[in-house]
Amino acid sequence: MGPRSPQPVILIVEPFGGSTRLHNPNLPMVYWDDAAVTRGEGIFETVLVRDGQPANFERHAARFRASAELLGMPAPDPSYWRRATLEAAAEWYRQLGQDPATGFEGEAKCVWTYTRGRASTGNPSAWLRIEAIPPSVMEQREHGVSVMCAPRGWSTSETPHEDAPWLTFGAKTLNYTAAMAALRCARERGFDDVLWLGEDHETVLEGATSTLVIVKKGQRLRTPPSGGDVLPGTTQAAIFEYAQAHGWRCKEKELTVHDLERARSVWLVSSVRGAVPVMRIGETELEPRDLDEARELFTAAISATD
Amino acid sequence: MGPRSPQPVILIVEPFGGSTRLHNPNLPMVYWDDAAVTRGEGIFETVLVRDGQPANFERHAARFRASAELLGMPAPDPSYWRRATLEAAAEWYRQLGQDPATGFEGEAKCVWTYTRGRASTGNPSAWLRIEAIPPSVMEQREHGVSVMCAPRGWSTSETPHEDAPWLTFGAKTLNYTAAMAALRCARERGFDDVLWLGEDHETVLEGATSTLVIVKKGQRLRTPPSGGDVLPGTTQAAIFEYAQAHGWRCKEKELTVHDLERARSVWLVSSVRGAVPVMRIGETELEPRDLDEARELFTAAISATD
Repeated sequence: MGPRSPQPVILIVEPFGGSTRLHNPNLPMVYWDDAAVTRGEGIFETVLVRDGQPANFERHAARFRASAELLGMPAPDPSYWRRATLEAAAEWYRQLGQDPATGFEGEAKCVWTYTRGRASTGNPSAWLRIEAIPPSVMEQREHGVSVMCAPRGWSTSETPHEDAPWLTFGAKTLNYTAAMAALRCARERGFDDVLWLGEDHETVLEGATSTLVIVKKGQRLRTPPSGGDVLPGTTQAAIFEYAQAHGWRCKEKELTVHDLERARSVWLVSSVRGAVPVMRIGETELEPRDLDEARELFTAAISATD
Repeated sequence: MGPRSPQPVILIVEPFGGSTRLHNPNLPMVYWDDAAVTRGEGIFETVLVRDGQPANFERHAARFRASAELLGMPAPDPSYWRRATLEAAAEWYRQLGQDPATGFEGEAKCVWTYTRGRASTGNPSAWLRIEAIPPSVMEQREHGVSVMCAPRGWSTSETPHEDAPWLTFGAKTLNYTAAMAALRCARERGFDDVLWLGEDHETVLEGATSTLVIVKKGQRLRTPPSGGDVLPGTTQAAIFEYAQAHGWRCKEKELTVHDLERARSVWLVSSVRGAVPVMRIGETELEPRDLDEARELFTAAISATD
């Protein structure tokens, strides 16, 4: 067996040809004039790697392409990113002491990053990394999370995108300063996560790095409408597709904090953490019902992605 | 004489002790797990270097500290940044073939960057760079700019900061994706720059990377109120202080596109470009009056900063 927590595997991807090279994580990697560093101009996807394979690949690849398009960057070729993910994953499991001949086992976190690149070359920069899933994730999957409600502090206008092509809402960019600030604030106050609220301080939008899904009686799932200030969720989409096919009724619908308090259960869903139940919202302890039924559904839905 | 366009001078600053080291711009500098690269978590200031000295230093240092505080980062020590700027500037002018004994001459662009740093160390990253001022800046100072009006697409709420300490409005962060997208769009449409509009598509907020100042008859200057979605401008503040002391009446005031069309002149002001007159807004050619008087005032005000 190899070491239990290997170094992250970093693979630099040549964005036009798809060739890759391993980068030593102990050496600097990004140049001073990369737009990621000068203007936060880049996009990313966080993908679960499961038993050597990227999970929910097609949805991540589609959102990655959509993000690139919104930023006016050359379209990333999904086949390059799949190949690079598989290559990095193989290296990751090898470092864990696993033998490709018998197949890989276990989960890891993979992040794809794609930036506008260096001002001096005009070429985008692209790389991915694979690292261990933090122990807190396992803990949260099992025991759930407490969330702080936080007014987002801004709202999007009604301007249609065709009239304002510079608006990058809906792109998963590196501009996560506010989300990170809110998460720090939540942790200082004893919460695990953040639930963004709309301008009325009642409407619920999404988690800081996750999508909100609630379970209602009569096998119904609800999630706040995406678009504007709510990013479309890849995991939520996978769950809804699977649940719908298994007799659940799934809908995008405006939700308030009150709806959450009355739901059978409330979940934050995202790629690596999966589905974690919300146990407390602000000072209100929830009393979730039929958690196991929902957990089974979500786990099955997430396991069904490839 | 040395080469006319030397390589950028990059100085890495040790954020707690202030020691510096030159970094070769041809080598990668930032690590894969720096928050600037993973989450756009960092702040910056762009400072004009004039004849070897940073211009408007105190205001930049104050905004830099305010930005760091809004992001919950350790306060940057202004004395470190002044010393590092002087050191990098000396190296810059030396590369230009100038002799420190006879004093330095000419302008350059200096950018301070300060990020939350590497996840693996928890220490912030800090560096500055000095590079040549692009020729387009000289051109724009002389001939002015045309601007595209662009609805910002979002608006801030009334939530006071003390109720929502995670809101980072007012911090000059690396999250410039939308501004860069709007500038690209403007250039594709034949404009030089962007003027952000509020939700009503009438109220004028600021330039993509500059503050708006208008000159009205009777020696009056106006700028849109800062705070919320308008960053307080260091150059505008310097101009207002100087102008006020020289008999002008200066005020923050809500402005509309119509106010701009009726003004004697309209200006975008920022550190490196200085004050550039706006000659066209969308399809409307402006007919600025007394440009030279305003230009003289602004140049004197900017020259008076140290």
